[in-house]
Amino acid sequence: MKFIVNIEIMPNKELLDPQGKAVTLGLKNLGLNTVENVRIGKHISFEIEAENAEKAKDAAEIACKKLLANPIMESFIIQVD
Amino acid sequence: MKFIVNIEIMPNKELLDPQGKAVTLGLKNLGLNTVENVRIGKHISFEIEAENAEKAKDAAEIACKKLLANPIMESFIIQVD
Repeated sequence: MKFIVNIEIMPNKELLDPQGKAVTLGLKNLGLNTVENVRIGKHISFEIEAENAEKAKDAAEIACKKLLANPIMESFIIQVD
Repeated sequence: MKFIVNIEIMPNKELLDPQGKAVTLGLKNLGLNTVENVRIGKHISFEIEAENAEKAKDAAEIACKKLLANPIMESFIIQVD
Protein backbone atom coordinates (compact mmCIF):
# COMPACT_ATOMS: atom_id res chain seq x y z
CA MET A 1 0.00 0.00 0.00
CA LYS A 2 1.17 3.50 -0.75
CA PHE A 3 1.31 6.07 2.04
CA ILE A 4 2.01 9.78 1.98
CA VAL A 5 4.37 10.86 4.73
CA ASN A 6 4.72 14.45 5.90
CA ILE A 7 7.60 15.37 8.18
CA GLU A 8 8.04 18.66 9.99
CA ILE A 9 11.58 19.31 11.22
CA MET A 10 12.03 22.33 13.49
CA PRO A 11 15.01 23.74 15.38
CA ASN A 12 14.81 23.05 19.11
CA LYS A 13 13.16 25.80 21.15
CA GLU A 14 16.21 26.31 23.37
CA LEU A 15 18.41 27.19 20.41
CA LEU A 16 18.84 30.52 18.71
CA ASP A 17 17.41 30.43 15.18
CA PRO A 18 19.36 33.11 13.23
CA GLN A 19 17.27 32.63 10.08
CA GLY A 20 14.14 33.19 12.15
CA LYS A 21 15.59 36.34 13.72
CA ALA A 22 16.37 37.71 10.24
CA VAL A 23 12.83 36.99 9.08
CA THR A 24 11.40 38.68 12.19
CA LEU A 25 13.30 41.85 11.24
CA GLY A 26 12.19 41.53 7.60
CA LEU A 27 8.55 41.22 8.66
CA LYS A 28 8.85 44.27 10.92
CA ASN A 29 10.18 46.21 7.92
CA LEU A 30 7.04 45.13 6.03
CA GLY A 31 4.94 46.69 8.79
CA LEU A 32 4.08 43.44 10.56
CA ASN A 33 5.25 44.71 13.95
CA THR A 34 3.38 42.23 16.11
CA VAL A 35 5.18 39.14 14.82
CA GLU A 36 7.37 37.34 17.35
CA ASN A 37 9.29 34.12 17.79
CA VAL A 38 9.72 33.26 14.12
CA ARG A 39 11.22 29.80 13.72
CA ILE A 40 12.15 28.26 10.42
CA GLY A 41 12.40 24.57 9.77
CA LYS A 42 11.93 22.07 6.99
CA HIS A 43 8.87 20.37 5.63
CA ILE A 44 9.51 17.11 3.81
CA SER A 45 6.91 15.01 2.05
CA PHE A 46 7.28 11.69 0.26
CA GLU A 47 5.41 8.62 -0.88
CA ILE A 48 6.34 5.22 0.50
CA GLU A 49 5.24 1.70 -0.33
CA ALA A 50 4.70 -0.20 2.94
CA GLU A 51 2.56 -2.99 4.38
CA ASN A 52 0.77 -0.72 6.82
CA ALA A 53 0.83 2.79 8.26
CA GLU A 54 2.92 1.72 11.24
CA LYS A 55 5.70 0.36 9.03
CA ALA A 56 5.59 3.51 6.93
CA LYS A 57 6.00 5.56 10.11
CA ASP A 58 8.91 3.38 11.29
CA ALA A 59 10.66 3.90 7.94
CA ALA A 60 10.10 7.66 8.17
CA GLU A 61 11.57 7.65 11.68
CA ILE A 62 14.70 5.87 10.42
CA ALA A 63 14.93 8.40 7.59
CA CYS A 64 14.71 11.30 10.06
CA LYS A 65 17.22 9.89 12.52
CA LYS A 66 19.79 8.82 9.95
CA LEU A 67 19.51 11.47 7.24
CA LEU A 68 16.91 14.21 7.48
CA ALA A 69 17.14 15.70 10.97
CA ASN A 70 20.05 16.70 13.16
CA PRO A 71 19.14 15.16 16.53
CA ILE A 72 21.28 17.68 18.43
CA MET A 73 19.58 20.75 17.04
CA GLU A 74 16.25 19.65 15.62
CA SER A 75 13.12 17.77 16.54
CA PHE A 76 10.68 16.18 14.10
CA ILE A 77 7.01 15.29 13.83
CA ILE A 78 5.91 12.55 11.43
CA GLN A 79 2.43 12.30 9.98
CA VAL A 80 1.34 9.37 7.82
CA ASP A 81 -1.76 9.60 5.60
CA MET B 1 -5.05 38.22 21.19
CA LYS B 2 -2.04 36.11 20.44
CA PHE B 3 -2.19 33.55 17.64
CA ILE B 4 0.26 30.89 16.56
CA VAL B 5 0.69 30.75 12.80
CA ASN B 6 2.15 27.74 10.99
CA ILE B 7 3.09 28.09 7.33
CA GLU B 8 4.07 25.28 5.01
CA ILE B 9 5.88 26.40 1.86
CA MET B 10 6.47 23.71 -0.77
CA PRO B 11 7.97 23.79 -4.25
CA ASN B 12 5.32 23.55 -6.98
CA LYS B 13 4.59 20.02 -8.16
CA GLU B 14 5.46 20.79 -11.78
CA LEU B 15 9.00 21.82 -10.87
CA LEU B 16 12.03 19.63 -10.41
CA ASP B 17 13.15 19.59 -6.78
CA PRO B 18 16.91 18.81 -6.86
CA GLN B 19 17.19 18.67 -3.07
CA GLY B 20 14.34 16.16 -3.00
CA LYS B 21 16.03 14.05 -5.69
CA ALA B 22 19.25 14.00 -3.65
CA VAL B 23 17.35 12.92 -0.53
CA THR B 24 15.57 10.16 -2.51
CA LEU B 25 18.99 8.74 -3.43
CA GLY B 26 20.23 9.11 0.13
CA LEU B 27 17.22 7.23 1.47
CA LYS B 28 17.72 4.43 -1.08
CA ASN B 29 21.31 4.12 0.16
CA LEU B 30 19.89 3.70 3.69
CA GLY B 31 17.83 0.76 2.43
CA LEU B 32 14.54 2.63 2.13
CA ASN B 33 13.98 1.56 -1.47
CA THR B 34 10.26 2.19 -1.63
CA VAL B 35 10.48 5.94 -1.07
CA GLU B 36 9.38 8.11 -4.01
CA ASN B 37 8.59 11.72 -4.84
CA VAL B 38 10.53 13.36 -2.03
CA ARG B 39 9.82 17.08 -1.91
CA ILE B 40 11.48 19.49 0.46
CA GLY B 41 10.03 22.79 1.52
CA LYS B 42 10.04 25.13 4.48
CA HIS B 43 8.02 25.15 7.65
CA ILE B 44 7.72 28.52 9.36
CA SER B 45 6.02 29.19 12.67
CA PHE B 46 5.52 32.46 14.50
CA GLU B 47 3.38 34.20 17.09
CA ILE B 48 1.35 37.23 16.12
CA GLU B 49 -0.73 39.70 18.07
CA ALA B 50 -3.97 40.34 16.18
CA GLU B 51 -7.62 41.22 16.80
CA ASN B 52 -8.92 37.93 15.48
CA ALA B 53 -7.84 34.80 13.62
CA GLU B 54 -8.85 36.23 10.26
CA LYS B 55 -6.59 39.27 10.66
CA ALA B 56 -3.75 37.01 11.78
CA LYS B 57 -4.23 34.95 8.62
CA ASP B 58 -4.30 38.07 6.44
CA ALA B 59 -1.01 39.21 7.96
CA ALA B 60 0.53 35.78 7.38
CA GLU B 61 -0.60 35.91 3.75
CA ILE B 62 1.10 39.29 3.28
CA ALA B 63 4.25 37.86 4.91
CA CYS B 64 4.21 34.88 2.51
CA LYS B 65 3.58 36.94 -0.61
CA LYS B 66 6.10 39.67 0.16
CA LEU B 67 8.89 37.85 1.93
CA LEU B 68 8.62 34.16 2.72
CA ALA B 69 7.52 32.39 -0.46
CA ASN B 70 8.60 32.70 -4.06
CA PRO B 71 5.26 32.84 -5.93
CA ILE B 72 6.83 31.55 -9.14
CA MET B 73 8.23 28.38 -7.64
CA GLU B 74 6.39 27.78 -4.38
CA SER B 75 2.93 27.47 -2.95
CA PHE B 76 1.99 27.95 0.69
CA ILE B 77 -0.58 26.78 3.21
CA ILE B 78 -1.34 28.89 6.28
CA GLN B 79 -2.76 27.50 9.49
CA VAL B 80 -3.76 29.75 12.40
CA ASP B 81 -4.26 28.33 15.92
